[in-house]
Amino acid sequence: VVVPPHLNEFQRIARFFAPLAAPGALGLLDDVALIDGPPGMQYVLKTDAIVEGVHFRPDDPPAQVGQKLLRVNLSDLAAKGAAPVGYLLMTALPPSRDEAWLAEFAAGLAADQATFGIGLLGGDSVATPGATTLSVAAIGRVAAGRAVLRRGARPGDLIYVSGTLGDAALGLKAAAGGLAGIDAAARAFLIDRYRLPQPRLALGAALVGTARAMMDISDGLVADLGHICEVSGVGATIEAALLPLSHAAKASLAGEPALLGSVLGGGDDYELLFTAPAAAAALAELGERIGVAVTAIGRIEAGQGVRVLDPEGRPVAVPVAGYQHF
Amino acid sequence: VVVPPHLNEFQRIARFFAPLAAPGALGLLDDVALIDGPPGMQYVLKTDAIVEGVHFRPDDPPAQVGQKLLRVNLSDLAAKGAAPVGYLLMTALPPSRDEAWLAEFAAGLAADQATFGIGLLGGDSVATPGATTLSVAAIGRVAAGRAVLRRGARPGDLIYVSGTLGDAALGLKAAAGGLAGIDAAARAFLIDRYRLPQPRLALGAALVGTARAMMDISDGLVADLGHICEVSGVGATIEAALLPLSHAAKASLAGEPALLGSVLGGGDDYELLFTAPAAAAALAELGERIGVAVTAIGRIEAGQGVRVLDPEGRPVAVPVAGYQHF
Repeated sequence: VVVPPHLNEFQRIARFFAPLAAPGALGLLDDVALIDGPPGMQYVLKTDAIVEGVHFRPDDPPAQVGQKLLRVNLSDLAAKGAAPVGYLLMTALPPSRDEAWLAEFAAGLAADQATFGIGLLGGDSVATPGATTLSVAAIGRVAAGRAVLRRGARPGDLIYVSGTLGDAALGLKAAAGGLAGIDAAARAFLIDRYRLPQPRLALGAALVGTARAMMDISDGLVADLGHICEVSGVGATIEAALLPLSHAAKASLAGEPALLGSVLGGGDDYELLFTAPAAAAALAELGERIGVAVTAIGRIEAGQGVRVLDPEGRPVAVPVAGYQHF
Repeated sequence: VVVPPHLNEFQRIARFFAPLAAPGALGLLDDVALIDGPPGMQYVLKTDAIVEGVHFRPDDPPAQVGQKLLRVNLSDLAAKGAAPVGYLLMTALPPSRDEAWLAEFAAGLAADQATFGIGLLGGDSVATPGATTLSVAAIGRVAAGRAVLRRGARPGDLIYVSGTLGDAALGLKAAAGGLAGIDAAARAFLIDRYRLPQPRLALGAALVGTARAMMDISDGLVADLGHICEVSGVGATIEAALLPLSHAAKASLAGEPALLGSVLGGGDDYELLFTAPAAAAALAELGERIGVAVTAIGRIEAGQGVRVLDPEGRPVAVPVAGYQHF
C-alpha cells in the first residue's frame, strides 16, 4: 500500500476511516452518529479518548481525570442538543496506576454520574505497558430528526459561543508553570477550566430548533468554526473584540497580548459554538435563564474559510490551527 | 482512600465500577448492556480493547489486528444472540504506527465490515507516547427480552461449546516459537486461530430461545464457565474426554499432554459456551446446518464451582485460572 509520507489527524480520518462509514455516521464529518431509538427518538453516539501526556498531565487529580473523560464526551452530546443516557468505559492502565488512583478516578465518575443523571453501561478494564489510556463511548437521546448537526450554517447566520474562550489553553500554560503575571485566584480559575470542562447540556437542548449548526470547541475556536464552514459550504468572519473573555483571561492578555492566539486557537474549552438567524438579544436572554453566557462573535458568509478581524477591521493572524495529533 | 494492596481485574470491576452501573448494565456481570431500541427490539452494547504487547504482538499483520479488534466485540454480540449493527472505533497510535500500518489496519476493518454487514459509526483518532491501544464499542440488536444472558443456567442443563477449544492459546505459543513438535500446517492453523477469531453470529442468533445461559470464551473455558456458574448460582462438571479438539491441538497434546492446561485454561478462543436443556443431538444437527460444530462437554449441577473429570472420573487440575490483567 502506497501512502503519502505524513497525514494529519483529519487527513487520516478522511483517507482511512471515512470510506468505512455507516449510513448513520454522517460521513464521519460530524461529532456523532445517529441511530434509531424508541418511537420519536434517536440515539446519539460518541467516543472520545484521553491519553496521559497528551490530554491530561500525569499528576492531574484522578477524580478530575475521570470527570474530564466523561465530560468531553457529554460535551459532544450537548452540542447536538441531546440528553445523556449512559456510557461505556475502557481503561488501559499501567502498573503505576494503583488501586488508590483507580478509587479516586471512579469517585470522580460517580460524582459526575450524579451531576448529569447517567450510569455506566459497561466497559473493559485492561493492563497496558504504556501510557494510561481512557476511552468513553457515550450515548445520548434526541427527538428524531432534531439533532443539530455541523452542516446547517447559512450565510447571514450569526455565530455564537457559550461561556468564555481561551481559559483552558491558558490553564494548561498555568498548570505547566507559565502565566507568571496573574494572581493565584486567576491561575486556579484557569487550571480548573482546563481540567474540568462544563458540558453545556441544558443550553444545547434549549437550542434545538434554533441553532442551525452546532459543535463544541475542542480543537480551538478557529479550527472548529472551520469545520462548520467546510461541511456547510460557507465562510465566516469573527470580530476579535467580541470574543467573551473571563477576568482571568483578560488579566493574562493584558500582560501578554500575544496570548490572543490561545483564545482563537487553543483547544479544550468545550464551550458550544453555533450559528443561528440573527437573534442575539433573545439568545443572550436564553443563556441568562440557563446560567451560561451566550455571545454573538461574528457572522456566516458566502464563500469559505474563517477570518478574524480586529476593531479596525484588519485581519488578525491566527497562530495555532487547532490541535493536531499527527 | 484506603484499598487492599492488590485487586485482580474482576475485583477491581466489582469494587470500583459495579457501583457505577446503570440499570441496563446487568450489574456489569454480563458481557453487554441492553437499552431500548425501536419497537420490539433492544440494542446490545459492548466495548472491548486490545493493547499491543498484551492482546496482540507488535509484528502481527495490521489487517488481522483490525479484524481481531472488531471480532472480539462481535463475538460478545454473538454470545447474546444479537446481530451486529455498527461500531465506534478508538485508535491511540504511537509514532511508529505509520500510515502504511494504518492503511492495512483499515483494510482489515473494511474486509470484516463486508463479511459481517456492518459499518463504522464514528470514532476518535489520537496519538499516544505509549503502546498501540485500540478500542471498539460495538452495537448489536436483538428481539426485546430475548438476549441470552449469563445468569440463566440451571441444574440439569447440558454444557455446550462451539468449534474447537485451546487452538488460540496453542497458537500464541506457536507464534512465540513454541510447539516444536507439530508440522507447519498445524502451526499455521493454530496461529490463525489465535490471530483471527470467528465470531459465531449465526449460531448465537439460532440459539435464542434454546440456550439458557451463554457467553463467549475469552478468558478460558474453566474461568468463563465459572462466570456463568457464579451469576447463575450453580456448579458445573466438565468431562475432559468430551472437549472438542482440532487436529492441530490433538497433535500438540500428543507430544505434550500437559498442554491440556491450555485447552482448559487458555483464552482467546472466542467460541460460544452455553447451557441448554439436554438436546445434544438436535444441537449438533443445528451446528451442522450452520457449519460450526456444537459439542456437549458436561452438565450444570446444584452447588458451585467448576470441576473437570478425566475418563476415570478423577479430577483434573486446571493450571491456568483465566487471563488476569492485574
